[in-house]
Amino acid sequence: MTDVAGEAKSVDLSDIDPAQRAAILVEALPYIQEFARRIVVVKLGGNAMVDEALAESFAADIVLLRAVGLRPVVVHGGGPQIGDMMSRLGKEPEFVDGLRVTDAETLDIARMVLGGQVNREIVGAINQHDHLAVGLSGEDAGLITATPRDPSLGFVGDVVHVDRGILDTLLDRGFIPVISTTAADVTGQPYNVNADSAAIAIAEALSAEKLIYLTDVAGVLTDMADPTSLISRLSATRARLLIADGVVAGGMIPKVEACLAAVGGGVGSAHILDGRIPHVVLLELLTDAGVGTMITRSDGGGS
Amino acid sequence: MTDVAGEAKSVDLSDIDPAQRAAILVEALPYIQEFARRIVVVKLGGNAMVDEALAESFAADIVLLRAVGLRPVVVHGGGPQIGDMMSRLGKEPEFVDGLRVTDAETLDIARMVLGGQVNREIVGAINQHDHLAVGLSGEDAGLITATPRDPSLGFVGDVVHVDRGILDTLLDRGFIPVISTTAADVTGQPYNVNADSAAIAIAEALSAEKLIYLTDVAGVLTDMADPTSLISRLSATRARLLIADGVVAGGMIPKVEACLAAVGGGVGSAHILDGRIPHVVLLELLTDAGVGTMITRSDGGGS
Amino acid sequence: MTDVAGEAKSVDLSDIDPAQRAAILVEALPYIQEFARRIVVVKLGGNAMVDEALAESFAADIVLLRAVGLRPVVVHGGGPQIGDMMSRLGKEPEFVDGLRVTDAETLDIARMVLGGQVNREIVGAINQHDHLAVGLSGEDAGLITATPRDPSLGFVGDVVHVDRGILDTLLDRGFIPVISTTAADVTGQPYNVNADSAAIAIAEALSAEKLIYLTDVAGVLTDMADPTSLISRLSATRARLLIADGVVAGGMIPKVEACLAAVGGGVGSAHILDGRIPHVVLLELLTDAGVGTMITRSDGGGS
Amino acid sequence: MTDVAGEAKSVDLSDIDPAQRAAILVEALPYIQEFARRIVVVKLGGNAMVDEALAESFAADIVLLRAVGLRPVVVHGGGPQIGDMMSRLGKEPEFVDGLRVTDAETLDIARMVLGGQVNREIVGAINQHDHLAVGLSGEDAGLITATPRDPSLGFVGDVVHVDRGILDTLLDRGFIPVISTTAADVTGQPYNVNADSAAIAIAEALSAEKLIYLTDVAGVLTDMADPTSLISRLSATRARLLIADGVVAGGMIPKVEACLAAVGGGVGSAHILDGRIPHVVLLELLTDAGVGTMITRSDGGGS
Amino acid sequence: MTDVAGEAKSVDLSDIDPAQRAAILVEALPYIQEFARRIVVVKLGGNAMVDEALAESFAADIVLLRAVGLRPVVVHGGGPQIGDMMSRLGKEPEFVDGLRVTDAETLDIARMVLGGQVNREIVGAINQHDHLAVGLSGEDAGLITATPRDPSLGFVGDVVHVDRGILDTLLDRGFIPVISTTAADVTGQPYNVNADSAAIAIAEALSAEKLIYLTDVAGVLTDMADPTSLISRLSATRARLLIADGVVAGGMIPKVEACLAAVGGGVGSAHILDGRIPHVVLLELLTDAGVGTMITRSDGGGS
Amino acid sequence: MTDVAGEAKSVDLSDIDPAQRAAILVEALPYIQEFARRIVVVKLGGNAMVDEALAESFAADIVLLRAVGLRPVVVHGGGPQIGDMMSRLGKEPEFVDGLRVTDAETLDIARMVLGGQVNREIVGAINQHDHLAVGLSGEDAGLITATPRDPSLGFVGDVVHVDRGILDTLLDRGFIPVISTTAADVTGQPYNVNADSAAIAIAEALSAEKLIYLTDVAGVLTDMADPTSLISRLSATRARLLIADGVVAGGMIPKVEACLAAVGGGVGSAHILDGRIPHVVLLELLTDAGVGTMITRSDGGGS
Repeated sequence: MTDVAGEAKSVDLSDIDPAQRAAILVEALPYIQEFARRIVVVKLGGNAMVDEALAESFAADIVLLRAVGLRPVVVHGGGPQIGDMMSRLGKEPEFVDGLRVTDAETLDIARMVLGGQVNREIVGAINQHDHLAVGLSGEDAGLITATPRDPSLGFVGDVVHVDRGILDTLLDRGFIPVISTTAADVTGQPYNVNADSAAIAIAEALSAEKLIYLTDVAGVLTDMADPTSLISRLSATRARLLIADGVVAGGMIPKVEACLAAVGGGVGSAHILDGRIPHVVLLELLTDAGVGTMITRSDGGGS
Repeated sequence: MTDVAGEAKSVDLSDIDPAQRAAILVEALPYIQEFARRIVVVKLGGNAMVDEALAESFAADIVLLRAVGLRPVVVHGGGPQIGDMMSRLGKEPEFVDGLRVTDAETLDIARMVLGGQVNREIVGAINQHDHLAVGLSGEDAGLITATPRDPSLGFVGDVVHVDRGILDTLLDRGFIPVISTTAADVTGQPYNVNADSAAIAIAEALSAEKLIYLTDVAGVLTDMADPTSLISRLSATRARLLIADGVVAGGMIPKVEACLAAVGGGVGSAHILDGRIPHVVLLELLTDAGVGTMITRSDGGGS
Repeated sequence: MTDVAGEAKSVDLSDIDPAQRAAILVEALPYIQEFARRIVVVKLGGNAMVDEALAESFAADIVLLRAVGLRPVVVHGGGPQIGDMMSRLGKEPEFVDGLRVTDAETLDIARMVLGGQVNREIVGAINQHDHLAVGLSGEDAGLITATPRDPSLGFVGDVVHVDRGILDTLLDRGFIPVISTTAADVTGQPYNVNADSAAIAIAEALSAEKLIYLTDVAGVLTDMADPTSLISRLSATRARLLIADGVVAGGMIPKVEACLAAVGGGVGSAHILDGRIPHVVLLELLTDAGVGTMITRSDGGGS
Repeated sequence: MTDVAGEAKSVDLSDIDPAQRAAILVEALPYIQEFARRIVVVKLGGNAMVDEALAESFAADIVLLRAVGLRPVVVHGGGPQIGDMMSRLGKEPEFVDGLRVTDAETLDIARMVLGGQVNREIVGAINQHDHLAVGLSGEDAGLITATPRDPSLGFVGDVVHVDRGILDTLLDRGFIPVISTTAADVTGQPYNVNADSAAIAIAEALSAEKLIYLTDVAGVLTDMADPTSLISRLSATRARLLIADGVVAGGMIPKVEACLAAVGGGVGSAHILDGRIPHVVLLELLTDAGVGTMITRSDGGGS
Repeated sequence: MTDVAGEAKSVDLSDIDPAQRAAILVEALPYIQEFARRIVVVKLGGNAMVDEALAESFAADIVLLRAVGLRPVVVHGGGPQIGDMMSRLGKEPEFVDGLRVTDAETLDIARMVLGGQVNREIVGAINQHDHLAVGLSGEDAGLITATPRDPSLGFVGDVVHVDRGILDTLLDRGFIPVISTTAADVTGQPYNVNADSAAIAIAEALSAEKLIYLTDVAGVLTDMADPTSLISRLSATRARLLIADGVVAGGMIPKVEACLAAVGGGVGSAHILDGRIPHVVLLELLTDAGVGTMITRSDGGGS
Repeated sequence: MTDVAGEAKSVDLSDIDPAQRAAILVEALPYIQEFARRIVVVKLGGNAMVDEALAESFAADIVLLRAVGLRPVVVHGGGPQIGDMMSRLGKEPEFVDGLRVTDAETLDIARMVLGGQVNREIVGAINQHDHLAVGLSGEDAGLITATPRDPSLGFVGDVVHVDRGILDTLLDRGFIPVISTTAADVTGQPYNVNADSAAIAIAEALSAEKLIYLTDVAGVLTDMADPTSLISRLSATRARLLIADGVVAGGMIPKVEACLAAVGGGVGSAHILDGRIPHVVLLELLTDAGVGTMITRSDGGGS
């Protein structure tokens, strides 16, 4: 339980009077009441832990969410880190029909880097505030059961089942699960599983209130060139229209489609946030200042 | 669960950027972690519910403290309101040797005003945010057992025992007890009990982390004429020295002595706060900006 | 835990031999077995606490019912006491189209008298036997949500919802809730609610086994002039016939209709008892000597 | 759950008015409150189940005690029944130095009669009211561990240990254990154990509030010839004096000494009651009419 | 907790190497995993307790099954022992139309022998390993409700209801119920109930995984003269065919029909085992060496 | 829950008759009874997971121990695997005064290999039988707090505290923790911790019944050259004598000293087993064939 205020104190609060401080805390009250004991799954890209200050701000957010009564679950990938280790080991990427293949050696590297490096760093950052984070992989306690996607791609798996037992065990005692997304199939063979898909499956299995994607974009913009054209809130119907109309395009399409899959699967709302903004999770969840894009099933849904 | 933000929004937050908002929320984290599940007894003077805006700010604070995991208990008096009702009923105050006497009729009026008016108002203000407040008197479920102080004073009682059963029952389920301080003796005869003393006895019986007195002064000042001479933190030893030296004087003496009694009885720390400052409880407990005087048993104790 | 036998001892038991004593206790056994852990809501009129001996006998009954395993809930009104206080305060009753109006001041008086006087007296009488009674109003913990009946009548409310949370909390730990029937609407504005209606709504929300009205009449008589014409047991169908036939008439009609509403809403049986008979609740529930009128949904129902 | 009132109704209650009925019920209240959840061990002699009406009255008492919140445990012997069966089987009693010997065949008969006949009858009588009685022997679940008293006496055992596990299991779920007093030693060899001693050991292991001996005498009399000379209450000290003085003499000495052993071992009080009086347990425990002799550790103790 | 190995050590294990020992233990693992916390009802014939070595091996099996996580329930008859006692008491069997009649005296003998002798022996044998067995009859706690089969047969009853309350109470705390099959009707009159039928009814009420009949035959043979013609596994359909074809004949028919009734009533599988084989229950449940006949509802069902 | 029997079936059981099979299972009973719910910590060397058949036999043992009611905890090192990865990454070992230094890069490799490779393999092998294994490191949930051993050695840590919270959480729900021994200090800086020492500290914190070291030696031999000179059981006193006398020498000294530390710290007994024997854990714990050396605090202690 260390001094989380260190980083926050670098922000100048000298011009903020007590009434404003109190107002900001009180502003958070209805959100805290609404989300009490709800589960929030946060998907963290591999980039997110590279910038140390961002990693610290993320860890502080997760700990604060839990302290005020939410139950956060962190899911992470680690593509860049896996790539680094492969090149350090002189391992050439393999391709079949233009698709990257995960052979046995690549799988070993992925498990090692995800479970022994990226996961450790996130767990460590959270545990600097409070000893609550517990690293897991989809292989632990049968959390995720996978099935091979395509034999020619090697050990790339798709999620076929999430067993929430170990997550309930940890959440019930107040721990924060941090999950790297390798998983075994029914014979025990491990696979590497796409972290975005795993996050959706976990959020659905937990009937999560929210699924948050921390990305490196501002959210859904109507004009890619204009950061002020951010859409704060989007129903599933309108999101599909924007894709059809070409407003949502390029790399944003899979992100929005993941959000649509999540809300279609029973998650309350899905959020695309810019992980480069310090404390972006906190700002989105506990203040009136929406800072990313929230996608809800219906026009009135979510919050 | 209504819009608590109404009142907060009257504070202008337009010049506060997201980083500052986040910093203020994050600043609260160590306090929330430290006080998790701890009991805080707040003693509210009869004046506190007269100003409606202050009453609202107080209610919002209590609900926010509970939302972030503390367990608040409210104890209140109601001298001014009892006085008003007595004069409306044409009841003359009675004195014996210069001391005010509580005869049977005065006692009836006190029970009626405390339990049926002041208590109702506090409960109502809290329940506008969340239906959690439950009004009690010391007579309910044997909460407080009283004994007559002095026969010549009539039905004025001193606390001889606090039975925490009903408080544990309510706190375990997340309710917020709001207590008016009439109490029965072992024969069932009711008495009016001093609210400051009752608050100490309740805080001790609950092994409360904090006992907070909401008053109409700024706290302990080294120079009564200079509001900037506020002492934020005071050990019991130094507090006694200040009384001996005459720095603490007049009406402040009984307040400080009540705090000394509380910390002497096992309460973590006792606070004298200015109830006229909006959200003063929040500012004292969840921000680095100490706004009143905290008295602790030893120099290093409390927080 | 005081000497409840005091009052009972004034009854002469000298001519009752041990076999008879035992027989009376054993006679209660099937009733105790049948009603074990069942909830009984007792509605007490404002008159009931005026006669001190009756108040004591009522309190003893409630404590005995709980001691043998039932779970009593007390609901009370207080019309006469409110009227007294209004005249003491020189407050003239106001009328609109012949109906009494509850203005803000009258409402304040009602809350004060109900919550701070009548409720206190019932709680106190019960707690002389065992410290189990806890006073509540419909405003506590959102117990009763009200809605205005008719704007021209002022703050007179009807029950729209009962939240049994606080009652379950208290009953689970063996406490006896004693409820005065003021209640807030969704905006937090308090209202005065008719105690008979509130008792029905509470009994329904709790799926109570029995709802008992303590009145100042003997029960339903086929001949108002003949106390021996008491009907001990009445099905809903027959009760409606008696109203249609004019046998049940005058002030008895609303009482019987309240009973019909209760059994229609799922309460096991509703009883009209004469509160002027000492220990009438006990006699009705635990002896073969039915002393009032029990109304059941069907001919075979209830007990 | 059958009509226990059958037998009670044979008692004429026609001259008892409602106020008297109520008074008798209310008279039981302080006893019910005092004994709530307390364990009462009742030792039943082999004679007790011979008179069918007494057996029924005993069963009704036990069920009523449980219904009002006590936790009764029944311990029984069965000397006369064992003797009957031995003579039916043509088994001659054997003696060594004038003491009866329990050989293997006698032991088999004792187990059979106690566990398969006497125990069955008591269980059956209780279960006619409510299906709560469960027959046990000291051999079940290691309830009683015995050790041989004297090799020349054969399989006569003394209690060396009581394991309350199975009793707690049954009492926690509201069952009524009915115990016959055979028991195994550490090698598994069964023995016949004196029921009076076993009852004391069980009462001590359970920290019972009361141990009641149902006998065929009125209690302790100062003048054996005068039934009105019954001593209702006796401290341990005075009981020992009465033995020393020869006032307590003959067959009463072992009964009083058993009571002294029980209260010496931590049981609240021990009672010698006349099992020939219908409902004697009820009359002793729930009415002001003490009908036997209660022995307490000190002069003020017990109740 | 005594040395169960005594009897096992008489088996020569000197030629078994550690790898084989380990393999046998590991072979049990999938069965232990599959049956974890499942209920197994074992019906023991009256013959089973006559051979002391078999009784010991049976007791060891039951204790081992419980130790590895199953929840065994034992049901027993005692025809031979009842017959012995009747002849010792010079009681002539009575017949009506060629059927044996259970008159009151016979019933008394049956209760005595079953509950006070056979039950005691089984309980004692199990408790030599661990103090877990608790003897019950169908009369305890309303476990079995019976109805007379045919007035001319006297007190012979059929099962009409099983109340699993007392069994759940004991199983939840890890005890092993051992049940003799006398039972009361709704008026409390006891009856003797066929133990095979009672075992089926109990297994159904408990949704048991398995019902095991310990008999004195090898199982279902296709050729009665050839012990190697044992059928290890039989679907209900095929079992009915074998009866129709006359392959299952004579005394085997009621045994197979009892099994069919059990699996028809929801029990996972029913087993006919040869109680003369030491540890036959263990061998059937925890090793790959099936030693009796298992009957399942469908061809693929059971295990 | 897969077919664990695969590997076991390769052992020829054809010459073992049913009586022997049963005897081996029954032989395990007293051990299962004695160890029920006890915690057993198994320390696995890095070599142990290299031989696939041994890894499978180890996993089967752990699952069987849990299935029969023990609560196993696995602690592992991974020196060889760390060395392999370092050489693959071209990382030269660094030395200061002849001692190997763990610089930041080495630490990263160690965390990666231990948490992302060795731990994964053990978890995967266990989860092939049942989805119960959960991988942890000492960094998760503050499980192990470390302190630097010697600044010149870099990030080599010693255990200063074990927080059993996360282990209790997992064990209470039946999971099997598998722990790699990296740990953070109070500032959050990770260290590599010696697995033998960590195993002792964890066993002590859990008050484990047993601590088992799986090594590549047979146990303590009085004559290193003679495998039949194995000492099955050794008191702490005698173990110290054997070290003093030089009988225990060389690499065996630290192993025996670790065992002495464990039993000195409250662990019931410590075992040195030869991990090259298939199912050695099972043989040591559940059969009479002791296959390694057990060290107990006193001569009579342990089992």
